[in-house]
Amino acid sequence: MKILITAFDAFGGEELNPSAQCLKLLPDQLGQAQILKQELPTIFGQAVGLVTEKIRQVKPDRVLHLGQAGGRSALSLERVAINLADAKHPDNAGQVPVDQAIQVHGSAAYFSNLPIKAMLEAILQAGIPAEISNTAGTFVCNQVMYQSLYLVDQEFPQMQAGFIHLPYSLAQILDKPGQPALGISDMVRGLEAGLDLLVSRG
Amino acid sequence: MKILITAFDAFGGEELNPSAQCLKLLPDQLGQAQILKQELPTIFGQAVGLVTEKIRQVKPDRVLHLGQAGGRSALSLERVAINLADAKHPDNAGQVPVDQAIQVHGSAAYFSNLPIKAMLEAILQAGIPAEISNTAGTFVCNQVMYQSLYLVDQEFPQMQAGFIHLPYSLAQILDKPGQPALGISDMVRGLEAGLDLLVSRG
Amino acid sequence: MKILITAFDAFGGEELNPSAQCLKLLPDQLGQAQILKQELPTIFGQAVGLVTEKIRQVKPDRVLHLGQAGGRSALSLERVAINLADAKHPDNAGQVPVDQAIQVHGSAAYFSNLPIKAMLEAILQAGIPAEISNTAGTFVCNQVMYQSLYLVDQEFPQMQAGFIHLPYSLAQILDKPGQPALGISDMVRGLEAGLDLLVSRG
Amino acid sequence: MKILITAFDAFGGEELNPSAQCLKLLPDQLGQAQILKQELPTIFGQAVGLVTEKIRQVKPDRVLHLGQAGGRSALSLERVAINLADAKHPDNAGQVPVDQAIQVHGSAAYFSNLPIKAMLEAILQAGIPAEISNTAGTFVCNQVMYQSLYLVDQEFPQMQAGFIHLPYSLAQILDKPGQPALGISDMVRGLEAGLDLLVSRG
Repeated sequence: MKILITAFDAFGGEELNPSAQCLKLLPDQLGQAQILKQELPTIFGQAVGLVTEKIRQVKPDRVLHLGQAGGRSALSLERVAINLADAKHPDNAGQVPVDQAIQVHGSAAYFSNLPIKAMLEAILQAGIPAEISNTAGTFVCNQVMYQSLYLVDQEFPQMQAGFIHLPYSLAQILDKPGQPALGISDMVRGLEAGLDLLVSRG
Repeated sequence: MKILITAFDAFGGEELNPSAQCLKLLPDQLGQAQILKQELPTIFGQAVGLVTEKIRQVKPDRVLHLGQAGGRSALSLERVAINLADAKHPDNAGQVPVDQAIQVHGSAAYFSNLPIKAMLEAILQAGIPAEISNTAGTFVCNQVMYQSLYLVDQEFPQMQAGFIHLPYSLAQILDKPGQPALGISDMVRGLEAGLDLLVSRG
Repeated sequence: MKILITAFDAFGGEELNPSAQCLKLLPDQLGQAQILKQELPTIFGQAVGLVTEKIRQVKPDRVLHLGQAGGRSALSLERVAINLADAKHPDNAGQVPVDQAIQVHGSAAYFSNLPIKAMLEAILQAGIPAEISNTAGTFVCNQVMYQSLYLVDQEFPQMQAGFIHLPYSLAQILDKPGQPALGISDMVRGLEAGLDLLVSRG
Repeated sequence: MKILITAFDAFGGEELNPSAQCLKLLPDQLGQAQILKQELPTIFGQAVGLVTEKIRQVKPDRVLHLGQAGGRSALSLERVAINLADAKHPDNAGQVPVDQAIQVHGSAAYFSNLPIKAMLEAILQAGIPAEISNTAGTFVCNQVMYQSLYLVDQEFPQMQAGFIHLPYSLAQILDKPGQPALGISDMVRGLEAGLDLLVSRG
């Protein structure tokens, strides 16, 4: 089994992105599964371009995208990606798309076909806070999740894809009183529990 | 240097109290300082009785009380204890004191005489979220902090005493969506950084 | 112009539902538009049955569903409804559907075809907190919104439909410290501003 | 009975202060009680100077200070003022006092001698969210409350004084997603209920 995991670089004035930090700490092999890692720029268009290229080249069995969702307090397993790019703040290239479709002929939304509820249980069993989320937003994170599920629909019906949003890391909230966060090592532990579940399911 | 550290048992329907978990994991020796540990029942009167007894017996140079403040997202260095016991929920013996003075002849409040701002910096430097708090509440935590500072005022002028409130641990929020938490090992790391500061100051 | 507005009865242990309270206070006529009101039971299946029947009977030009989203602090104009019923808590008939499609042959999601961004501006202009929301949840609210947009897609292409989630009312948070709320009359004022926009657009 | 009510001008980048808005809308007479109003600058030293002057001149029976506590969701009846000025942000004159005593020979704290729990009940009975708060902070609000209670202690033993913190108004959160607020007219209604209680108690 080949699992492609992606993460984003820092954006929105942050110096770090917990998803990129977690990605580095995840193992390259998990049981019988090979882990392939790809960092993405937080840039509309570029990120999905890279993801598409990588998926076509690697043909992974599973794709797990990671990203930061500041303000959340738990690992958020995203349920659904919607066909919309609508930014409130510029991406890392200064783009601020408004109410744009991601794929003109795509479905209004795609549900993740990862076993998110089983993954949720596995992460909670590992003692790490986690939840199902019903929105991946309308920024680059959602675009990347949508694109992978569009590729499942159009080209790779055997592939499973999904997205986990991560809270701020502890380092990010040192100057943000009242914001929730999780330690990087705890987030990695939760992600490994979720990936273990994927691998054990085969 | 002798440092007395106390923590509370679980209360309010919780099965764990992060302060008691942290207490167990703190070292017994820190540089030149000896760490003395005491768990307290979350019971008005009993906890302060035990604290008073222990302080008179051990004559510690520093007293650091630990307790749980569910809903906070950072280690909270308490600035001040007030002369009031006023519970919304029963303590572990079923007591619900209302608007009672802790010491009839005590000051309306005592400020912690620990170097809380230097400790704050030390904890943040260690990468653990921390903040100064202006209220330790009116439950057993505040009563214990008040009592130790009353003893500083009345009997042990060389002693320094204070309180650090801890967020929920990760285990506690697995079924509390949206609540902030910190991992036990991260909290311990923060507490050690604060204690190191105390020891290095002599 | 005929505008059908619906609201829900109380659920989840609450004695009131702010949507039903607002519905009663909205006018029956707004400029050239006739307002038709329908309260719905917070029951999967029954609510959408009533909505479908009412829409086929009345053939409204616009449909605005209202519902309660406790914990939010602003009027939430929902962007999208997803083809999923997945309850954490029982509805008012004790049903707890898990991962069920709303319409087996429906789209994965439908975007509201109301001018939600223009309505947002109108509500903010009226001084009432409002926001675009990217999830209407997976409870009865989402089911009703999905069903109306499904009917737009299948039977009534000229109809516009959408959903506004309301915060708790002040009365609901008297015993819920820390929860945000809005006064009923403020919510009504915001809804009227949004409806005025709809009417003026024709 | 003479009741002096004070409020603050806008600070911290805000254009409005809900306390000043409420002050204008409160009546000048309430039953047998005469209401005297005084707006204060959000400036350490100046505000307490004005309050002291006004109290000595008017000799009010009751003093109720109002101020803004952005982020709170209910009217907060402050229980206690502490002898400390410690600002994180500059006041309206650019001052940022750090760990300064308000009155060198004052008590560490003074408890409000208003009947805050009876006022709390009266406000809740009026349907307005309210709570007892154990900290008025360490900014100008706390300084003013401390000063009035210091004057009770030193010069005017028959006077009762206290502080109510107000949430943001609706207008203030239009650009602050997720922040709680209350409408000005609702806050005024709550304040009147609290004042009615004071007047009825004589």
